[in-house]
Amino acid sequence: MVKVAIDAMGGDFGPEPVIEGVVQALEEKQFLPILVGDREEILSLLPQYYTNKVKIVDASDVIDMADQATNALKRKESSIYKAVELVRNKEADAVVSAGHSGATMTLATLRIGRLPHISKPALATFMPTVKGSRSLVLDVGAVTDCTPQNLFEFGYMGEAYVQSVMGRSHPKVGLLSNGEEDSKGNALTKEAFKLLDGLDGFVGNVEGGDIFSGEIDVIVTDGFTGNILLKTAEGVQSAIFTLMKQYIRKSLPAKIGALMMKKKVFTSMKKEVDPAEYGGAPLLGINGCAIISHGSSNAKAIKNAIFQALRYTESNVNERIEALLSEKA
Amino acid sequence: MVKVAIDAMGGDFGPEPVIEGVVQALEEKQFLPILVGDREEILSLLPQYYTNKVKIVDASDVIDMADQATNALKRKESSIYKAVELVRNKEADAVVSAGHSGATMTLATLRIGRLPHISKPALATFMPTVKGSRSLVLDVGAVTDCTPQNLFEFGYMGEAYVQSVMGRSHPKVGLLSNGEEDSKGNALTKEAFKLLDGLDGFVGNVEGGDIFSGEIDVIVTDGFTGNILLKTAEGVQSAIFTLMKQYIRKSLPAKIGALMMKKKVFTSMKKEVDPAEYGGAPLLGINGCAIISHGSSNAKAIKNAIFQALRYTESNVNERIEALLSEKA
Repeated sequence: MVKVAIDAMGGDFGPEPVIEGVVQALEEKQFLPILVGDREEILSLLPQYYTNKVKIVDASDVIDMADQATNALKRKESSIYKAVELVRNKEADAVVSAGHSGATMTLATLRIGRLPHISKPALATFMPTVKGSRSLVLDVGAVTDCTPQNLFEFGYMGEAYVQSVMGRSHPKVGLLSNGEEDSKGNALTKEAFKLLDGLDGFVGNVEGGDIFSGEIDVIVTDGFTGNILLKTAEGVQSAIFTLMKQYIRKSLPAKIGALMMKKKVFTSMKKEVDPAEYGGAPLLGINGCAIISHGSSNAKAIKNAIFQALRYTESNVNERIEALLSEKA
Repeated sequence: MVKVAIDAMGGDFGPEPVIEGVVQALEEKQFLPILVGDREEILSLLPQYYTNKVKIVDASDVIDMADQATNALKRKESSIYKAVELVRNKEADAVVSAGHSGATMTLATLRIGRLPHISKPALATFMPTVKGSRSLVLDVGAVTDCTPQNLFEFGYMGEAYVQSVMGRSHPKVGLLSNGEEDSKGNALTKEAFKLLDGLDGFVGNVEGGDIFSGEIDVIVTDGFTGNILLKTAEGVQSAIFTLMKQYIRKSLPAKIGALMMKKKVFTSMKKEVDPAEYGGAPLLGINGCAIISHGSSNAKAIKNAIFQALRYTESNVNERIEALLSEKA
C-alpha cells in the first residue's frame, strides 16, 4: 500500500480542509495516510471511523507562509520538515503539502535529494486547454535563474511525466519562446534549443498561446518566466470574469441571460479550469515524490493532490526520468 | 500641422485598410498624412475628395512578413524604409506601420536614432484592466536580452509616456517579477530593482495579475518575458471564449442566455479589450515617433494608431524622457 506523508498543518486554512481531503481520498482509494502535525488537533478533526486507517506523526512547529524558506532546514520540529523526512527515510513514498511552498521545495530538494543526472528539480503545473486535456508547464517557480542544462532536463522530465503518469505515449515538447521560428529566443533558450533538439518529442519553439491550444503536451520554460505566465494567465481569467460581471449587472436581459447560462456554461467552465481538479504541482527531479498544493487548497484539492501522489508513485515516473537521461548522458 | 508618414503597403491585408484608416482619421482630426507606397494603387483606393489632403511618396518595394528584419536596412526602396526616412529627415513627425514589425523597429532605431541616455528603445503596449483604464507594459519584444540598465530606462520611459500622453501625473511603476517581495526576482530584475528605486513612481516588484488590476500604470519587463506574457494573455482570452462557445452550443437555454447577453456584455467587452481601440504600440526611446501596428490591423486600428502618433507628437513625450533621464544621469 502506498504511504503518503501529509503536512496536516500547512495551508491558509489550517488542518481542517487537509483532514477532510484525506477522508475524502480514503473513501475512494486504498493508501496509508501519514498525518504530520499536532496529534490532538488532528484527532479532534478526524472522524472516529478513520482513526485506525491513518498514522499520525506528532510535530509541534508549523512554518508560516510569512517565514523565509531558507530557515526551513533549521525548523526540524515543523510538520513539513517531518513529513519530508518520512520520504527521505523511506517510511513514506510521497509527501503532500499545502504549506509554505518555498520551504517544501527546499526541504524536498535538500533532504530527499535529487535524481541522478538532475541538476535542479522543477515545479510542474497543469494548464487547461480548449481540447479539454491539460498541458504540463515547467518550471513555474523552483529555479528562478536557469541554465540551458536546467531547461534541457526540464524537457526530459516533462516528457517522462506525461508518458508515465498521463499515459500519452508520444508527447510533444515545446520550448517557450518569443516566436515560433527556430531563430527566436533569448540567450538562454537559444542554447537550450540545441540541447533539447535530441529529445524525441521536441517540436521546437512555442508561444504563450500554445499552452492552451491542447496541441503541445509539455511546455518548457525557466522558473521566472513560468511563474509570471502562470500569474498572468490567472490574472486574465479573473479580469475577464470581473469585467463580465460588471456588464451583466448593468442590464436586466443580460442578468437573465447569465442565469440561463449559469449551470451549463459558467459552472462547467469553472470546474474545467478549477485548480482543485489537479490539487497540486509535482516537484519533478527529486528522488521521491512531493506534491505542492496551493495554500488556499480546499478538501477536494487535497484529495486530488493525494491521488496525484498515488499515480506518481505507482507509475514509476522517476525511473523513466532516469532511463531517459542516462541514455543521453 | 503634424505630419504622419504612413506605410501604405504594410499589413496582412495590403493597402486597403490602411487607406481607409487614413480617411477615417482625416474625418476626425487635422493632420497631414504622407502615404508611402505604390502611387497608382494608393490613388485607386483613395476617394477623390481626399487626394489633395494627403501627400504621396512613391515606393516600389514592400518588405514581406516572412522577410528577415536584418535585411530591412538594404531595402531602400521599400515603403517602410522610405516612411522611416521621412522622420529621419524631419519631413515627417511620426511614422505608422502595420508592416513587418521587426523591420520597422530596426529601421526606426538605426535610421531615426535613439534619444540621449537611451541604450535601447522599447516597444510598449496597452493592456485592458478591470478599472477600464489601460496599463502600459514595456518591453514586449524590442530587446530580447536585456541588461538592468535597459529595464531602468524602460521604467523612466514608461513613466514619462503615461504622464505626458495619458495625462496621469503620478503613475505607479512596477517591475514584473515572480513575487511582490523585494527579495523576489531573477539576477536581471534584482539589479534593475536597485536602479529603478530612484524613480518617483516606483512601487517595487509586481506580479502578472497586476497588469490587469488597474492599480499599476507601468509594468517594466524584458522583451522576451513581455512578449511571452502578451501572447499568454491573448491565449487565455481566446481559450476562455472558445470554451464558452463549446458549452453554449450544447444547451438551448444557454444559447438563449448568450443571445440575451450578447449586446450588453459580449459586444461591450469585445470593444473594451479590442486592440484596434489603441491601434498600435509606440516604440519608446527613439528620436521621433514610431507606432507599430499589428499586421492584422483594420481601418479602425490604423485610425487609432494615427491618433496615437498625433498625441505622442503633441505631448512632447520625448522631451519628458530626456528631462527625466538627464536628471538621473
